[in-house]
Amino acid sequence: MPQQPPLGVAVIGTGRMGADHVRRIDEVVHGARVAAVVDVDAERAKAVAGRVEGCAAYTEPAAAMASSDVDALLIASPGPAHEAALLQAFAHDLPVLCEKPLTPDPAAALRVLEAEQRLGHRRVQVGFMRRYDAGFMRLKSVLDAGEFGRPLMLHCQHRNASTPPGFTSQMMINDSVVHEIDTTRWLLDQEITAVTVLRPAPSTAAPAHLSDPQLVLFETSGGAVVDVEIFVNCGFGYQVRCEAVCESGSARTGEEAGLVTHSAGRWGGTIPQDFVPRFAEAYDRQVQRWVDATRRGTVEGPSSWDGYAAAAVCEAGVTAQATGRRTTTELIERPALYA
Amino acid sequence: MPQQPPLGVAVIGTGRMGADHVRRIDEVVHGARVAAVVDVDAERAKAVAGRVEGCAAYTEPAAAMASSDVDALLIASPGPAHEAALLQAFAHDLPVLCEKPLTPDPAAALRVLEAEQRLGHRRVQVGFMRRYDAGFMRLKSVLDAGEFGRPLMLHCQHRNASTPPGFTSQMMINDSVVHEIDTTRWLLDQEITAVTVLRPAPSTAAPAHLSDPQLVLFETSGGAVVDVEIFVNCGFGYQVRCEAVCESGSARTGEEAGLVTHSAGRWGGTIPQDFVPRFAEAYDRQVQRWVDATRRGTVEGPSSWDGYAAAAVCEAGVTAQATGRRTTTELIERPALYA
Amino acid sequence: MPQQPPLGVAVIGTGRMGADHVRRIDEVVHGARVAAVVDVDAERAKAVAGRVEGCAAYTEPAAAMASSDVDALLIASPGPAHEAALLQAFAHDLPVLCEKPLTPDPAAALRVLEAEQRLGHRRVQVGFMRRYDAGFMRLKSVLDAGEFGRPLMLHCQHRNASTPPGFTSQMMINDSVVHEIDTTRWLLDQEITAVTVLRPAPSTAAPAHLSDPQLVLFETSGGAVVDVEIFVNCGFGYQVRCEAVCESGSARTGEEAGLVTHSAGRWGGTIPQDFVPRFAEAYDRQVQRWVDATRRGTVEGPSSWDGYAAAAVCEAGVTAQATGRRTTTELIERPALYA
Amino acid sequence: MPQQPPLGVAVIGTGRMGADHVRRIDEVVHGARVAAVVDVDAERAKAVAGRVEGCAAYTEPAAAMASSDVDALLIASPGPAHEAALLQAFAHDLPVLCEKPLTPDPAAALRVLEAEQRLGHRRVQVGFMRRYDAGFMRLKSVLDAGEFGRPLMLHCQHRNASTPPGFTSQMMINDSVVHEIDTTRWLLDQEITAVTVLRPAPSTAAPAHLSDPQLVLFETSGGAVVDVEIFVNCGFGYQVRCEAVCESGSARTGEEAGLVTHSAGRWGGTIPQDFVPRFAEAYDRQVQRWVDATRRGTVEGPSSWDGYAAAAVCEAGVTAQATGRRTTTELIERPALYA
Repeated sequence: MPQQPPLGVAVIGTGRMGADHVRRIDEVVHGARVAAVVDVDAERAKAVAGRVEGCAAYTEPAAAMASSDVDALLIASPGPAHEAALLQAFAHDLPVLCEKPLTPDPAAALRVLEAEQRLGHRRVQVGFMRRYDAGFMRLKSVLDAGEFGRPLMLHCQHRNASTPPGFTSQMMINDSVVHEIDTTRWLLDQEITAVTVLRPAPSTAAPAHLSDPQLVLFETSGGAVVDVEIFVNCGFGYQVRCEAVCESGSARTGEEAGLVTHSAGRWGGTIPQDFVPRFAEAYDRQVQRWVDATRRGTVEGPSSWDGYAAAAVCEAGVTAQATGRRTTTELIERPALYA
Repeated sequence: MPQQPPLGVAVIGTGRMGADHVRRIDEVVHGARVAAVVDVDAERAKAVAGRVEGCAAYTEPAAAMASSDVDALLIASPGPAHEAALLQAFAHDLPVLCEKPLTPDPAAALRVLEAEQRLGHRRVQVGFMRRYDAGFMRLKSVLDAGEFGRPLMLHCQHRNASTPPGFTSQMMINDSVVHEIDTTRWLLDQEITAVTVLRPAPSTAAPAHLSDPQLVLFETSGGAVVDVEIFVNCGFGYQVRCEAVCESGSARTGEEAGLVTHSAGRWGGTIPQDFVPRFAEAYDRQVQRWVDATRRGTVEGPSSWDGYAAAAVCEAGVTAQATGRRTTTELIERPALYA
Repeated sequence: MPQQPPLGVAVIGTGRMGADHVRRIDEVVHGARVAAVVDVDAERAKAVAGRVEGCAAYTEPAAAMASSDVDALLIASPGPAHEAALLQAFAHDLPVLCEKPLTPDPAAALRVLEAEQRLGHRRVQVGFMRRYDAGFMRLKSVLDAGEFGRPLMLHCQHRNASTPPGFTSQMMINDSVVHEIDTTRWLLDQEITAVTVLRPAPSTAAPAHLSDPQLVLFETSGGAVVDVEIFVNCGFGYQVRCEAVCESGSARTGEEAGLVTHSAGRWGGTIPQDFVPRFAEAYDRQVQRWVDATRRGTVEGPSSWDGYAAAAVCEAGVTAQATGRRTTTELIERPALYA
Repeated sequence: MPQQPPLGVAVIGTGRMGADHVRRIDEVVHGARVAAVVDVDAERAKAVAGRVEGCAAYTEPAAAMASSDVDALLIASPGPAHEAALLQAFAHDLPVLCEKPLTPDPAAALRVLEAEQRLGHRRVQVGFMRRYDAGFMRLKSVLDAGEFGRPLMLHCQHRNASTPPGFTSQMMINDSVVHEIDTTRWLLDQEITAVTVLRPAPSTAAPAHLSDPQLVLFETSGGAVVDVEIFVNCGFGYQVRCEAVCESGSARTGEEAGLVTHSAGRWGGTIPQDFVPRFAEAYDRQVQRWVDATRRGTVEGPSSWDGYAAAAVCEAGVTAQATGRRTTTELIERPALYA
């Protein structure tokens, strides 16, 4: 029986996320290789490609897609560039793992949805990597089994040690809470129908323009209520927690774990300082599962529909944040392709 | 030096709470004795008094107050009877530990405030026993020390295994969330200025008329935001948790503790089934501290003002619950006596 | 029905433990008062007595015992003085709570046993306060219920932040491990039949003469094996833990609890620095239960037999420590009075 | 730059461990492929090979080693077959990942050591997979950093839910405690110099012939003392824990983690039922690191020396178990190749 060759992946965008995906495919993932990298910065593309055997460097996604070495795309370029890259990928009928967001706004996401429907089959997996975190997977499986009855509420916490320069209040929704938006939709298998944002008096540790922390509330199509603490300058580390409160029990993920030490009058452990150690295995698993599915000729994981819905809820969230008012979300009817 | 005799306490009301306070004073508390019990049910009063040495039984609070054996009152009768008993106590200038609520509504509470001010000195401690729970006391002391900066948010959970017959949605605010109202005011040293209530699709385990669970939101005079899960038919036990999120750190109380067992494929421990084991030591400490202060001739702990403010926020909460709208609270100006 | 007067207690010895018991009886315990204090240092006795209403000061135990105000004794003098005080107490037929050790050696303990037997009824409770710690009480009750089958092993840890000047290796057994000796005998309801001591290369943080930490092993009459880490200069705080390994499950007490904080890259909590906060409630409960039993005319809790057995195992432990050899213990046959 | 082809691995032995390694290399590991499988059972070899693209089946290790497709060996055959396979591998100068034990006895291990020395370079990594568990790696890194000073004691627990038929007391040492032997040597970077085994009265849940649980004690060349609870019929699941007690702090790994649930009066989580979920990531990481090192032309991880030392300590452990006596271990001088 002949051996199946590794999947040739073109990684589009070689910033922090893109470069990390290049390393992941080159060193960790089974059954794939980095066939090409693409970056508008030709020098950076070449530098990254030079670290990988047999990897070409391009400045245009189209050029990579035209290469016979390229079987699939991992899009890690900035969000505004996603739509064009996705439409080109559809033209080449190539499978795509697209880092979140699918697109920065719901209108663009709708255009992607329509193009994928014209193609007639799913090609896109969106990079909501929490769905591949061991803890969230266990939580999902407890909820799906209905062990504790129907979920009624989710309590979520999402904390970053600090924000980079230029981080805005809207980014708290679009870049951070977007993960809780997807988590909520996925865990509950319901759509988010309304968003409310409460803004406490900001921490003095936050940049002057940033209303940090905030409490974001979701209402869902199935009547669940979700509260999300988003606190991006908490100072002490990176934390993501979620408790699902069900009819006869509750389940929490993201609690403290790891080495327990005793010293200097204290017990406890360390908190990761950013998302890399917290979700490293989730990223690995996400890409491995995508490669495995792609080699089997299937598409799994979060779809373009999930990317569109997240964009629509983000839009409502930013409005709710700006107005202080409960803001409802309106989604188009779910196309049959994403049923 | 002559020995100070024990404080003679009349316990008014011999229902579940009252009878437990009789036992506590008779068996646990140092420096006090049950001098009298009062209950409209003469048989019950006599039965309870008969279990305590030297204890008289009355059907009228006034009769107990007139006894030379009675130095102080512990009011554990139903809430609607509190106002009359308190006013009589003021007439006898007797120190009082009054079970919560001070009164069922803010108008009655205001009359109590006014009477106490006419008396010219504080006589009332209100039975918000959480202030005497070791965990909450540690949390308060961390916040007061400012170790982690200013508190920005509180996340609270309050769960009961199930409700007795006749338990109403309003009682979820007036009997249950009232504890989080006092906890918030005490921990933050701020007033609650607005209440919002979100009601998820109710649990099928809840009685038909009860919208259970609910998510109650407080905004405070210092700009903090507080979320409270109140879930009174959670099925699995009694849980009270509170996490204070501050500018550079967070602190949680009420986490699982106690014996950790491993058996039958599971690790963990037991959850108390009601408030008695959870707050037994808090009740003991509350009454002991009240007795100690009373014997020293001072009044400490939650005041009539705290009872009034709680009643006012409860009233706003019940409105918020009924209307689904954010409801602001209006307090009178804080009298000098309670400064 | 006339009121029973409080139990008049004479506290013998007003060092750290004695003074704390005086405070406890004076301020915390229900149904007792400090009628007298005794100390060879007349000034200290007077100073302590002066802080308590109606309290006499003596330099001789016999003088206190002769007082009609004294109904019971709490012996908190140094161990070598216990035997004489106990024999005098028997002469006055007074109930006694005797701080551990009952006596410093088994020969003296045997003389106390014989004297108590001549008296014909139990008069002594020994101050093994762990039996009154909530966590250990729960562990005992799980074992007694046989929920997980027969206990096979205990894993114990006993750590102090540091030792006072003059603390010797023998004191590691006689003052520290003596608690695990009693805990083992009580939890398992078995006698300890052999002791082995292993001595790792000592910590550089320990005083030069002290072989710290050590691993002490017990074998019991029922075939259980117990390991005890004794580490009295661990540097970081005071910790007492015990895990009982049974046929179908295990149960641990003494795990970290209390406020959980997040700050500066760490999660966790504080460790108490000495036994006072760790066992404060156990001391309170021990004395309260002793007072309650005494007022009912009964004697409960750890007996002179338990004091004797502990002394005998300590003696074997010190030998095992000095020789590096497994050392068996020999107890007299258990007298009927202690059956 | 040409792409490096995947490492062709021959897996020798297709029992539970071997078949799992085949799956791992075929589906998880990056940079390797299963080029051949070997099993004395030709049908089983063919069946396993048939599930993998381009995989040959052999009944003799030598045949696989002669294949030009085979670059490295993973030996997962029964322990008694290891020596012959290792010596053949040396003849072909092939890199080997050898499942533990290196050999069942120290004499055979010495012959392997000598042969590898004659070869003149290290070729063998022994499958002590705990060294690749995230928790143990963190513990090792804390100890190596010397954050808490020198390690003085280790407390270890190793529990299995139950044993398969035919499991003997010697296997408790050779198959189970061997992991703690390697863990001790690796964490402390010291040799084990003496072993003592204490045997409590066995659990009634253990098979009649099995003295289960046991307490195994190690003394090390650096003066540390290690206690190991080995309990292979604990009934409730699979647990591996280790606490390192150092001069100024302690660190534990293996504590309960994962989803925390509340239901039916209990809080807690599930315990894995065997080593597969507990150490799945450690196995993946072990094989990935071996493949990575092999492709770089280096040998890392536990060496033949570690395999020999473990065998020698196991031999002493079995003697200690049988005799009830402290048994010293004698190692040959460490050859320069393993310095």
